[in-house]
Amino acid sequence: MNLEEIGEFRFIEYLKKTYAPNDLDILKGIGDDTAVFLKENDTALLLTTDMLIENIHFKISNMSPEDLGFKSLSVNLSDIAAMGGIPKNVFISLAIPDKINYEFINNFFRGMDELIKQFNLSLIGGDTNFSRNDFIINVVITGVAKKNEILYRDGAKVKDKILVTGYLGDSSCGLDVYDGKLKFNSNYEKYFRNAHIRPKPQIKEGKIIAESKIANSMIDLSDGLASDLRHICIQSGVGAVIFENLIPYSDFMKDISRSKNVNALDYALYGGEDYCLLITVSPEYKNELYNVFNSKINTPLFEIGEIVKGDNIEIVLNSGERKAISKMGFQHF
Amino acid sequence: MNLEEIGEFRFIEYLKKTYAPNDLDILKGIGDDTAVFLKENDTALLLTTDMLIENIHFKISNMSPEDLGFKSLSVNLSDIAAMGGIPKNVFISLAIPDKINYEFINNFFRGMDELIKQFNLSLIGGDTNFSRNDFIINVVITGVAKKNEILYRDGAKVKDKILVTGYLGDSSCGLDVYDGKLKFNSNYEKYFRNAHIRPKPQIKEGKIIAESKIANSMIDLSDGLASDLRHICIQSGVGAVIFENLIPYSDFMKDISRSKNVNALDYALYGGEDYCLLITVSPEYKNELYNVFNSKINTPLFEIGEIVKGDNIEIVLNSGERKAISKMGFQHF
Repeated sequence: MNLEEIGEFRFIEYLKKTYAPNDLDILKGIGDDTAVFLKENDTALLLTTDMLIENIHFKISNMSPEDLGFKSLSVNLSDIAAMGGIPKNVFISLAIPDKINYEFINNFFRGMDELIKQFNLSLIGGDTNFSRNDFIINVVITGVAKKNEILYRDGAKVKDKILVTGYLGDSSCGLDVYDGKLKFNSNYEKYFRNAHIRPKPQIKEGKIIAESKIANSMIDLSDGLASDLRHICIQSGVGAVIFENLIPYSDFMKDISRSKNVNALDYALYGGEDYCLLITVSPEYKNELYNVFNSKINTPLFEIGEIVKGDNIEIVLNSGERKAISKMGFQHF
Repeated sequence: MNLEEIGEFRFIEYLKKTYAPNDLDILKGIGDDTAVFLKENDTALLLTTDMLIENIHFKISNMSPEDLGFKSLSVNLSDIAAMGGIPKNVFISLAIPDKINYEFINNFFRGMDELIKQFNLSLIGGDTNFSRNDFIINVVITGVAKKNEILYRDGAKVKDKILVTGYLGDSSCGLDVYDGKLKFNSNYEKYFRNAHIRPKPQIKEGKIIAESKIANSMIDLSDGLASDLRHICIQSGVGAVIFENLIPYSDFMKDISRSKNVNALDYALYGGEDYCLLITVSPEYKNELYNVFNSKINTPLFEIGEIVKGDNIEIVLNSGERKAISKMGFQHF
């Protein structure tokens, strides 16, 4: 049995069972967007760690060092957003092969600087090493959140409405543009590329949702709707049904899926790296959540389905057909 | 200019200057064994992150998966020890190439288990990924310490005595045994190999020293005495003189340096990975520190020199010659 057969998901489940935390200070161990442990009485500390590997998570030929720096930090900030937290401290560890020069590293840090300034973060540690082969980046971010505001993956309730905070599929469509699999005119290519390399971590959105204390669960859409909704369902012990005609697409995506042979739904379900948030909220509080959101921020909020009893995760297609959503989203394994 | 020319040390200095922390909660950013930030009023949180790369930091052919797991955790625990902290939570991220199977990973975690149980740690997060080439391990450990007990690298004072908490050089001699560069009888080989693969993190020792509130500075000996003493000196703005005849060696090391052509001093100064602690303490409190240490633990304490004015770091050789200790300890770059 090798790791590919087991898959990341089952491996994490195994670790979660084996290493159940034995410390009352730990509010959440393995299995959410961040670990959560007590800071003070009513404040929790969030910690997320993420390893990004050349030719697995990124290609140096596809991205400028600035973009790589920006994205490395951005995707980790998204994990803090998914808990409703405020990011604070950053730790960057690098394994640097010969082909990477000083200028590259300088520009890499410059790309991160944008986000460090925007979110008033402090870079306070890390580790630098040689690598014989690939360029490896490990990012650790700590954040804080009010203990009673944090939203976990396991809080979804039957009848909850499922909402997302952005258009889906643009980022993975952008990856196909980078890889030369898709060609459009330059405006379109620029839009999709940008969606892929410059995801905006929804810190403010996550915080607004968390402090409203209305939502029941939250996750960031990093692996694709199919996979991330599955995390919510499995951990909450529920099923879900979503509707193809409710999935939000950008005008660019709508355009290309009409004129070209592009399957927008595939991108939304299995593409990943959208880095907006998925929330579940009781139907009675749904309008209140819309009101809170609309009054505080410009980000759109889209209802795409609801939580149901059982463990089926299904989509109602535009054809009327009701279909199980297959397991395979984007998996790092 | 490439990274090898700059070196890890200067790169870290650059980051330290560029990213001076702007948050009052941060007691120590880049440049010590761990970052330190406020947890509660009188308690601080420590965080260390370390990347271990195949064929840079370890060879799979040299070590069993258990030993690799043990050592990966152990060297990070040593960073917590060096601040006088108590380790709490562990986060393990792996990039796993095809050649590594499930059994390997299982045994790797089994090796870590020893330390997880011994120090009552909680494994509460991480990240698992594929790798095309090398096996990469990133370990994050958080710990806690009383704010007013923590010992930093920058506290050494002129006239402080320099002490170490263990024999030096055994670990790097063990690496040469593994690499086939040295051959002894099996008892000796076993001893040195074990020193290399099973370093004992001196958590208890670090805590005893810290809570005594007698010492002025502390660091763990990970890069070799030459390099680690230099960290203390540069950050404290002082120099140091150590004495060859005071450097503590194990009986095994004494034996082989008499009978074989082994330079024990080179191993002690430049070998690294001893993972005992180096402390500086005012001469008037030295005896008190010995008493505290002896009454609470069996670990030996050896005085090897003293802190002096200026920025020279020198060794008085057995020949009587006084010599500058060259910069190059073990560097990851």
